[in-house]
Amino acid sequence: MRYEELTIEGRNAVLEAFRSGKTIDKLYVQKGCQDGPINSILREAGKQDTVVHFVTRERLDQMSETKKHQGVIAGAAAYEYAQVEDLLELAKKREEPPFLILLDNIEDPHNLGAIIRTANLAGAHGVIIPKRRAAGLTATAMKASAGALNYTPVAKVTNLGKTMEELKKRGLWFVCADMDGTVMYNLDLKGPVGLVIGNEGEGVSRLIREKCDYAASIPMKGDIDSLNASVAAGVLAYEIVRQRMG
Amino acid sequence: MRYEELTIEGRNAVLEAFRSGKTIDKLYVQKGCQDGPINSILREAGKQDTVVHFVTRERLDQMSETKKHQGVIAGAAAYEYAQVEDLLELAKKREEPPFLILLDNIEDPHNLGAIIRTANLAGAHGVIIPKRRAAGLTATAMKASAGALNYTPVAKVTNLGKTMEELKKRGLWFVCADMDGTVMYNLDLKGPVGLVIGNEGEGVSRLIREKCDYAASIPMKGDIDSLNASVAAGVLAYEIVRQRMG
Repeated sequence: MRYEELTIEGRNAVLEAFRSGKTIDKLYVQKGCQDGPINSILREAGKQDTVVHFVTRERLDQMSETKKHQGVIAGAAAYEYAQVEDLLELAKKREEPPFLILLDNIEDPHNLGAIIRTANLAGAHGVIIPKRRAAGLTATAMKASAGALNYTPVAKVTNLGKTMEELKKRGLWFVCADMDGTVMYNLDLKGPVGLVIGNEGEGVSRLIREKCDYAASIPMKGDIDSLNASVAAGVLAYEIVRQRMG
Repeated sequence: MRYEELTIEGRNAVLEAFRSGKTIDKLYVQKGCQDGPINSILREAGKQDTVVHFVTRERLDQMSETKKHQGVIAGAAAYEYAQVEDLLELAKKREEPPFLILLDNIEDPHNLGAIIRTANLAGAHGVIIPKRRAAGLTATAMKASAGALNYTPVAKVTNLGKTMEELKKRGLWFVCADMDGTVMYNLDLKGPVGLVIGNEGEGVSRLIREKCDYAASIPMKGDIDSLNASVAAGVLAYEIVRQRMG
């Protein structure tokens, strides 16, 4: 596994982790394993809506650090995710228009951590990440957040698009980072806003972009394509800060 | 070594690398080694002003990948550094007031790469890094720059403070990132400017801060201390972009 300190290997350890209420981000189960303990683990995974990957024994051997995985390896988050409602509550408590940051499949845990750090300092009320195809709150992400995770809530949702629809009903407008969008200085970003940051390689996905009310571009004066995702998030978040201060 | 693809091990290979004109960032030599070939290598290192570390044999064994280091391991840059003059030339060619980014001991090569990427897109004319106690253009930094290194020159200088003094005579003003500085929106950053970004943990060092004309702060609305260094560089660089556009 990539994030050692949060890897749990072996049937008893994994089952125990589920039952103690730990948030398991990902579960890797050996293909064809169908005995009692494995089925119990899969039942727990179903209750928690954990993403399950069925992989070959060779793959598990490769991932394993203890070399005693017994057909199952879990990736656990050492952090309890918040609910989207908690983020809105925080805005209400601070008497500010909501300012959320939504990550459409950020894959690099360093970027995730740096963005949570930025969210904290830019005064955002929280970060929303999707359950699948994205970095979770691994040890690396937590470290990169430099302590911001203790203050800035992070919610994990099954369907980012659906969450956006629900938040629109609560008055939020969504703006995504997009090279072809309106230059950010010319947008009004003072109201209740969700800032959507796309994947490192591919940017914001089509479905999510279609749900956005605006597309904001960062002026690009150079030769290459795009900023690092956490830098882009920082520049856009601070444009929101600037407009709200003014 | 941390950046495998650029590690050179063994006496002949290292000597060859020096003589072919490769930029060697760091040289590790076994303590007590004083024979002919090692002395030739040390002479070449002296000519190039390479930083030499004398380490124990155990340390070299640990760093070695080939396990045939013969008492010497070199860390080579696969990139040829520019001269400070080249950066000023680029500004002149573009008919723009110079905009340089100076890094006061950035240690993480990911940050270095991300900052070069930002420099390119924010239209800066180059990046200046110090020779000692800082990340160089390793493979990791080059990868994180996402191709920007092909366009944005990076100069490496022996003494950052002295370089600043020289650039002041050429009309540049220096602004450093500092929590206790003037809020960046209230500074005039339109002229010829050098933006100084400090070390990840300690910020801008005292000596360098004293040479800066202004200290700029990014508004901090959160609970933790500071942004990630490359995010801070991005936010400040884009404040310069915004002011220059306006």
